[in-house]
Amino acid sequence: MNAPATARAQRPHIVVVGCGFGGLEATRLLSRSDVDVTIIERTNHHLFQPLLYQVATAGLAAPSIAAPVRVLFRGRENVTTLLAEVTAIDPHGRAVTLADGNRIGYDHLIVAAGATHSYFGHDEWAAHAPGLKTLADAFEIRRRMLMSFESAERESDPQRRRAMLTFAVIGAGPTGVEMAGTMAEIARHTLAGEFRRIDPASAQVLLIEGNTRVLQAMPESLSAKALDQLRKLGVQVRLNARVTAIDAAGLSIGMPDGGSERIDSHCMVWAAGVAASPLGRLLAEATGAESDRAGRVLVQPDLSLPGHPEISVVGDLAAAQSHVPGKAPAPVPGVSPAAKQMGRTAARNILARLRGQATEAFRYADYGNLATIGRNSAVVDLATPFGPFRMSGRLAWQFWLFAHIYFLIGFRNRLVVLMDWASAYWSFQRYARVVPDVADPATRADSA
Amino acid sequence: MNAPATARAQRPHIVVVGCGFGGLEATRLLSRSDVDVTIIERTNHHLFQPLLYQVATAGLAAPSIAAPVRVLFRGRENVTTLLAEVTAIDPHGRAVTLADGNRIGYDHLIVAAGATHSYFGHDEWAAHAPGLKTLADAFEIRRRMLMSFESAERESDPQRRRAMLTFAVIGAGPTGVEMAGTMAEIARHTLAGEFRRIDPASAQVLLIEGNTRVLQAMPESLSAKALDQLRKLGVQVRLNARVTAIDAAGLSIGMPDGGSERIDSHCMVWAAGVAASPLGRLLAEATGAESDRAGRVLVQPDLSLPGHPEISVVGDLAAAQSHVPGKAPAPVPGVSPAAKQMGRTAARNILARLRGQATEAFRYADYGNLATIGRNSAVVDLATPFGPFRMSGRLAWQFWLFAHIYFLIGFRNRLVVLMDWASAYWSFQRYARVVPDVADPATRADSA
Repeated sequence: MNAPATARAQRPHIVVVGCGFGGLEATRLLSRSDVDVTIIERTNHHLFQPLLYQVATAGLAAPSIAAPVRVLFRGRENVTTLLAEVTAIDPHGRAVTLADGNRIGYDHLIVAAGATHSYFGHDEWAAHAPGLKTLADAFEIRRRMLMSFESAERESDPQRRRAMLTFAVIGAGPTGVEMAGTMAEIARHTLAGEFRRIDPASAQVLLIEGNTRVLQAMPESLSAKALDQLRKLGVQVRLNARVTAIDAAGLSIGMPDGGSERIDSHCMVWAAGVAASPLGRLLAEATGAESDRAGRVLVQPDLSLPGHPEISVVGDLAAAQSHVPGKAPAPVPGVSPAAKQMGRTAARNILARLRGQATEAFRYADYGNLATIGRNSAVVDLATPFGPFRMSGRLAWQFWLFAHIYFLIGFRNRLVVLMDWASAYWSFQRYARVVPDVADPATRADSA
Repeated sequence: MNAPATARAQRPHIVVVGCGFGGLEATRLLSRSDVDVTIIERTNHHLFQPLLYQVATAGLAAPSIAAPVRVLFRGRENVTTLLAEVTAIDPHGRAVTLADGNRIGYDHLIVAAGATHSYFGHDEWAAHAPGLKTLADAFEIRRRMLMSFESAERESDPQRRRAMLTFAVIGAGPTGVEMAGTMAEIARHTLAGEFRRIDPASAQVLLIEGNTRVLQAMPESLSAKALDQLRKLGVQVRLNARVTAIDAAGLSIGMPDGGSERIDSHCMVWAAGVAASPLGRLLAEATGAESDRAGRVLVQPDLSLPGHPEISVVGDLAAAQSHVPGKAPAPVPGVSPAAKQMGRTAARNILARLRGQATEAFRYADYGNLATIGRNSAVVDLATPFGPFRMSGRLAWQFWLFAHIYFLIGFRNRLVVLMDWASAYWSFQRYARVVPDVADPATRADSA
């Protein structure tokens, strides 16, 4: 299969691997030019990942934050969408291989395969503390969270019940902070009055962080504000606490003073480590490019690979630098605006090469950083021409809310999400508290 | 565990097993009286099953038709909700046993555990042709349907591609007719312009029925109209066709003339047979009641069991008769209005017994029958005091639409479903085309 075979004689064929923020933006830009594009994505949708924690915590239905790739490019006849997994890249034959054995030839290639969880060498922890990258992850966390309260309502042994009402989030980056804050809100407000044998408000939500503060990417003053807001929401934050073991019944943490603590929990979420897609190392091996410890591929200033100007890497898979004239190159953070910008730069550079023009070096425009914590709680650090503008609390939360709805894909999705949030805000209710399983959690091996 | 232990000394304790239409209505009515109620459901939600085919065909998100049981009874302090599976009933000890070993004692028991699929002794067919009873079923069918088109887009072999574009629905009752009609609409309209190598409109949708007509429960004139509308939508209807084999690659049907036909298909849906929950036979064995061939429990006129006035059976699990004065008893059909009415009658009879009053015989109020077929297509057979009122086509479809939205639980759900349908109607689009899996269907064993 060499799609689209008929058009390749006339027009350059660009293959984009992955439809996250980087791949999506690259394909959008390329689709408006006189080229053929094939976008290959392992799921059938683009995921608006900044709101994935809302699906995991039952605030939004999956379709509200996921748009089918095929629908996004329906009107673009020069774009072919393939739902497939790329298993190998052949830079010499200029083709990618799919899991089903098909080969797709390319003239130019953009690899935007993103990142996955890293358990720092403890892959066996994944079964007990799932991470949050895909919709399947979100459904699994939603199930564990809601089922823990359900099991506790049936349980008569106080110690076992205590474990069922203990929720542990590992890693206090943006995802960990959002998850812990929302879990505390659910325990204290959403479930109020629904149980007869337990008090959901007595649930403990722990946020465990190995470093000295939450939200490392933020300025220290905002980390302190975030910590304060988390505590007000009822989250127990453990700083300088390193996870040393995770099993089906709970986790162990080590303290800097050498002490250790065992925490029994039936619902643990991993938000601590990120690793590049395995495609990064495959690509580095095949092209002779370097990759860093997290498996990201080191790219040239124009995002292409050394010796392979026809291959670009963007988004979380790229170890890229921002090149601002007159300043030293600075590493680009793994955030969605950076992925979008890299996607656009890589696409523009391919079009420049096709016209025989020079490529541009990637320059990251940093508009700032924001993180939500819970109801009326967020921290915002905006980069403005006049310097940083910082806020926290209710105003920051409102800013976060409108920024996320603005960037959410599709008019319908924006409207529905706005409606869901408005109703959730006034009623403290969460719309998507549905778990499709019929299985009794007590009979599932993984919930011990 | 004998919940709620504190209150049992003062108030009668009624256990309701199952929160379908029958269990929900019974609990609602009982919750307004001076009794304690424990409702036990194996999922965490009440499912609005008449619209489940919309979740399966990507028209609605799961939370739009599923309401958490706990939320429905939040305000009723005398109702305890347990997410659990009942595995045994002890009529002599007056207790039910849960999968985790807990026993829940009762003074009165309503069993409303509903129905499941029946493959007529061929349980091995279930893996290849899932039925549609739960949200998990709906997600599985959605995945198979959408993934078939995706596989076809990657496939170069014309014969294999043909099989991927063949959809077979077995059984032409209301669910089968809805599924087939909607699948044809998706192939012809929803997916238009999205594929580059296949024409989704060339997909074949087959509806296979062993009997002489579709929608057996309808008058013959409406069956004929429904058949006509199905054919106009592009569905190939095979009547008098008996399924003789189903495997991963397709199915075989036998004709009345002795001939047979093999149909290669990657997406088959079972809508042919219904059997009562296994709890029916357990209950019959434990109480000495009779059960019919489908496993339903034969009940007394007042819906209680012979010799066990404290146990009632309602909904699809009950083989009940309608008792209209001056007429012969008539069997009650397995439809949601009948389940609701039985739930209310059983609850009223329990309250009557508690007051020492006589119970009433169940009387089914039949308001008629309606089935949707697809866009602007439905058949409606209303029972009015002046005789039957029948309609088909666009007007019938509008009637069906408003009836279903009216009966859908919760204001928010009604509004969102109305919005989704309005947008689907004008755009031909379907909102929930999201499949959480990242797996390549070509690598899954079950999709051959």
